[in-house]
Parts: sequence; structure tokens; C-alpha cells
Amino acid sequence: MPVRALWYSRGTLSLLDQRELPSRVVIRKIRTLAATADAIRTMAVRGAPSIGVAAAYGMVLAEREGKYTPAKAAALLGRTRPTAHDLFVGIETVRRAWARGKDPKRAADEYRAQIVEECHRIGTAGAPLLAKARNVLTHCNAGALATVEWGTALAPIRVARSRGARLFVWVDETRPLLQGSRLTAWELAREHIPHAVIADNAAGHFLATGKVDVVIVGADRIARNGDFANKIGTYEKAVVAHENQVPFYVAAPWSTFDASTPTGASIPVEERDPEEVLGFAGRRVTPRSSPARNPAFDVTPARFVTAFITPGGVILPRQVRATLARRAP
Amino acid sequence: MPVRALWYSRGTLSLLDQRELPSRVVIRKIRTLAATADAIRTMAVRGAPSIGVAAAYGMVLAEREGKYTPAKAAALLGRTRPTAHDLFVGIETVRRAWARGKDPKRAADEYRAQIVEECHRIGTAGAPLLAKARNVLTHCNAGALATVEWGTALAPIRVARSRGARLFVWVDETRPLLQGSRLTAWELAREHIPHAVIADNAAGHFLATGKVDVVIVGADRIARNGDFANKIGTYEKAVVAHENQVPFYVAAPWSTFDASTPTGASIPVEERDPEEVLGFAGRRVTPRSSPARNPAFDVTPARFVTAFITPGGVILPRQVRATLARRAP
Repeated sequence: MPVRALWYSRGTLSLLDQRELPSRVVIRKIRTLAATADAIRTMAVRGAPSIGVAAAYGMVLAEREGKYTPAKAAALLGRTRPTAHDLFVGIETVRRAWARGKDPKRAADEYRAQIVEECHRIGTAGAPLLAKARNVLTHCNAGALATVEWGTALAPIRVARSRGARLFVWVDETRPLLQGSRLTAWELAREHIPHAVIADNAAGHFLATGKVDVVIVGADRIARNGDFANKIGTYEKAVVAHENQVPFYVAAPWSTFDASTPTGASIPVEERDPEEVLGFAGRRVTPRSSPARNPAFDVTPARFVTAFITPGGVILPRQVRATLARRAP
Repeated sequence: MPVRALWYSRGTLSLLDQRELPSRVVIRKIRTLAATADAIRTMAVRGAPSIGVAAAYGMVLAEREGKYTPAKAAALLGRTRPTAHDLFVGIETVRRAWARGKDPKRAADEYRAQIVEECHRIGTAGAPLLAKARNVLTHCNAGALATVEWGTALAPIRVARSRGARLFVWVDETRPLLQGSRLTAWELAREHIPHAVIADNAAGHFLATGKVDVVIVGADRIARNGDFANKIGTYEKAVVAHENQVPFYVAAPWSTFDASTPTGASIPVEERDPEEVLGFAGRRVTPRSSPARNPAFDVTPARFVTAFITPGGVILPRQVRATLARRAP
């Protein structure tokens, strides 16, 4: 059975709580805007496209609560996390319908369906890039959990496998929150896709020793010039892949592309609680008097991106601007 | 009081157990070759220079036990860990004395004193490189714990501070065994040296955003051509430092230089138990069916090294060969 990160039915948004995986499968039932905002902020739901869909349903719940204006609800949800562009697209899509007197739930359902369909198209568009690959490296979780269904980085792997490709996936564990070893490994193990978890530090070793044929990651925001933000550590992997002439692909639905952000320098990078770094699996590992810094994302310049895998096909970084201009209403 | 990683007195090698830090300060008392080998293998003692000194005293204990030949004792200790060159230098120094009927303890004491003195000279040689620096990044632990006293990478920082420099240290946590967040942070906190622990993934972000003026690391083995092995992840940091034109220094005593290894391709890279990656503190974080790979070191090509900080001064990678030739007996 395919993974589904979240679903909505009769006034309840159900989320697979991603903080509990892989040790426990816990479904959170969410019935208010405030609870939705909390789930996004605390990363019960994470991954840019999933955040966008969760926020869209958060707007639906807000409308049902009857105590918010569309603008107020949008502002509250928009303050949860700053980096992922999808959050703002999901919110705005439903806010606009609601403000115009249309059915917010229908707008959210359509947004969700569109994201899922776009991820499937990413899989179809990206699978041919894996035709000659055996070993794929990915960072963080850009699977079904991050995107409701299919995934972004994992979608081409899933489609290629369904066509008979034999792929092995290197899974960066992705400190500090271990989305790789907890979530990506969980998705791959469920589908019996061969993989191995590695310390983030080891990616360079495998890239330099010919053990990685291609790198695929997701994104949280892609600027007009092709710079993009993604989970902290992505930049290092991109630089090292480039150094070793290993293709580096970024897979994302249209909601991750931000035509209003000119370059990566304008993308706000969220800094999260240092406790995430100071401890490991709930246990403090550093000395009591040692502080930590915890940027949750980094920005990778466009020159390190071989291509973007989009729902409309594979495009080069220099084609992002024109592609977005064509898509503008 | 300065940190001392190990000391020997009357048939007992005492080790600060580095697996227990920073939560507990535990001194292991070691009285046999087998226990020494076990302490090295399980990383109760780690860091190439400390391993070399521990092994030197392991030879002393072996001689006292009276059941080994010098060659047999050397072979047993030499099998504990394959990468650090210092291990073999420490063993060989005492083996030669013992085989010639000289006092093994005196040979080990002299070896220990030489390592400590060389580390101090590394500090003196390296401190001027920090004259214009404010923010230093280091990976793993190349402090007193790794080198008996002073450290390699940390020695220039200590000497520069004693001369009034105001330095801030970025500490890579260094998965999987967290030698950065556990050991380097502990050493720095003890001496009130300003620092912050970061996920290994975050080093690139701080390098790219101008927050790192210089990178200093230790080494486990340096080949004749200037390629070197160090803790897994070092290669990524070196590539990203180079990309951002941040100087990247490697500090090491002579025992880490291996004139018999022509290039990095000949350095054996230890692969350790996957459990180190799959979990932490007895708690498994990955799905039960997910495997892991755990190379403990990587090899950084000489072209990414700005210079080596040695007990004889600062030398360029291309000077390693000639420098070692001059030092050969």
C-alpha cells in the first residue's frame, strides 16, 4: 500500500505524525487552524509539498471554525515556517477561493490532487535520467511523506523501478532530525527498495569513490535564477557532486518555484531550536555549557544543479526564469 | 588544568575513556596488551597520536606480561585499527627498543614526550595563521584527547588564545560517534573558548555565508604526495572550503606522515560497525530492515590542502615529499 502523508475528511485533517516514525505509526487528528499551525511548526508534518497541502486544509478548518477572516487565517499559518514556498502557495490557493465565497474544501482538495499528480509527473519525467544509473544518493526525505504521495526525489526512483530498473539508494541520515534514516529509509524499506543509510559525512566518500551515479534531492524553494533552498547539507552534497562530475538533480512541483524570489540570497533560512543539535534521539550529548547553531536549510547556487525535474519535464537552471514566466497567469 | 588523554605509571596505563565523555569522566586502568588492543579497537582511546602513544604503552605492558615476542605483540596491536599511521609508529618505536634489549618503558616515555612536544610546536607554528581569523571551523576531535596533550588542530587555537587572539570555534558534531559535540566541545567548554556545535551538514552553510575564516583539522595518515586520511566528512569540508576560498589547514605530528604511502589511494579506510550509524545511545533510529554503511575515514586529495602545520613549521602539500626525505634516517 502506498504511503499517504495526510488526508482530510469531514472536518478532520489526519496526519501521519512524522516525528514518531519509524518506531511508531501515529495518526494525528487535527480539527483547528491552531492545531494545524502547531503540527507544521513542530514538524509532525514536513516536506515542502506536504506542508503546503496541510496548510491548505488548515485554511479549510479555519473557515469551519468561523472565527477568522481569510486574511487572518492566512497570516497565522504563514508564520509557522519561513522557507518552504509551497506553504504560501497552499495557503493562498484556499484563501483566494474562500475570500471569493467559493468552497475552501474544494479548493484544498483540488490543490492536494494537483500536488499528487505533479509528483507523479515528476516521476515520469525523471525516470529516464536513471536509465544508466545503479546507485542514487538522496538527502533528507523527499518521498511520499514530504509530498502527500509519490515524492519528488523518490518519484523518479519509484517510476524507474516499476519499469524494471534495479536501483540502490544511498540515504543520508540527515542530521539533526534524521529525516533520512527515519523517514526515507522507512519508505524504501516498506517497498523493499535496496538501500543503505550513511552518516551525512560519508556522502562525499561515496561520491569520490565512484559509488554514486546520480544525486536527486527535493527543494523547499527555487528562485527565479535556479538557486534553491533545501534541507541543511544539500549545498555540501551539491558542491561535492559537482567536484566529482556526478549529475545533481532537484525534483519539485510548481508550488516550490518562486517567481517572486530573484536569487537564493533572498530566500529566508529558518533557524530552529539548538536543542535539535545538542541532543540525539532525546538524549543530550554535548556538554551543558556548549551552545549550538541550527540552520534548517541552506541555499545551493544554480551552477551546481544539473537540471530540475519538474511536472513539465526536465529543465536546466537557466530555463527556470522563462519557464515560470510562461506559467504566470 | 590541561586535559591529558592517557598516562602510564608502574605497570598501569590510565586512559580517560572517550566513549563516556562528556557525561562522565571515567579513567580506565589497563594492565595488559589485550586490554590495550581492546581500548583502541572500541575507541576508549582515539585520535591518531593518542592511539600511537597508547599502543607504545601496550608494547610495554606486553613485555611485562612475558608471554609475547616483540614481533607478536606488535602484530596484535597493529591489527586493532588500520588507518592511523601513528599506531604503527608508536608500536614500531617500542618494538625496536625491546627487540634490541633496551627498556621498552623508556622508549614509550620518550615517544609520548616527543608527541606532546611536537603538538606544542604545531601550536606555535600554526598560531600566526590565525592572526587575522575570528572564526575557525574544525571537524572531529583533534584536541588534547586525540594527542595526549595540546592537540593538533586545537593547538594553534590554544597558542593563539594565550597570545590574546579572540577566536570562535565552529564544532562539527561529527557523526556517527560525535567526537565533535562530545569531545571537542568538552575541551573548549573546559577552557571557556567560545564555540558552537553544528550538525555536520551545516558546515557548508557557514562556509558559504562568510562565517568561517579558516578550517583546521587533524589527520590519521598523510601520504607522500600530500593526500591525507582523516575522520569521515573531512573530504566534504575540504572541497567546500576550497569552493569558498577559505584556507584549509591540516595539523599533524611527524608520526602521522607516512613516507611509504605514495598517494591517498593506498591508505586503507576502516569500515566500522553499521550499528554506529543505525542508532544512538542504545536506541535504534532507523527501520529494523534498513542496513547502513559506516566508513570511518575518507581521503582528501592534496589539492584541497592549503598547508600542513607540522612541528617543523608550515609546509605546502608539494613540500611533503622532500620534507619527509630530509627527515629519513
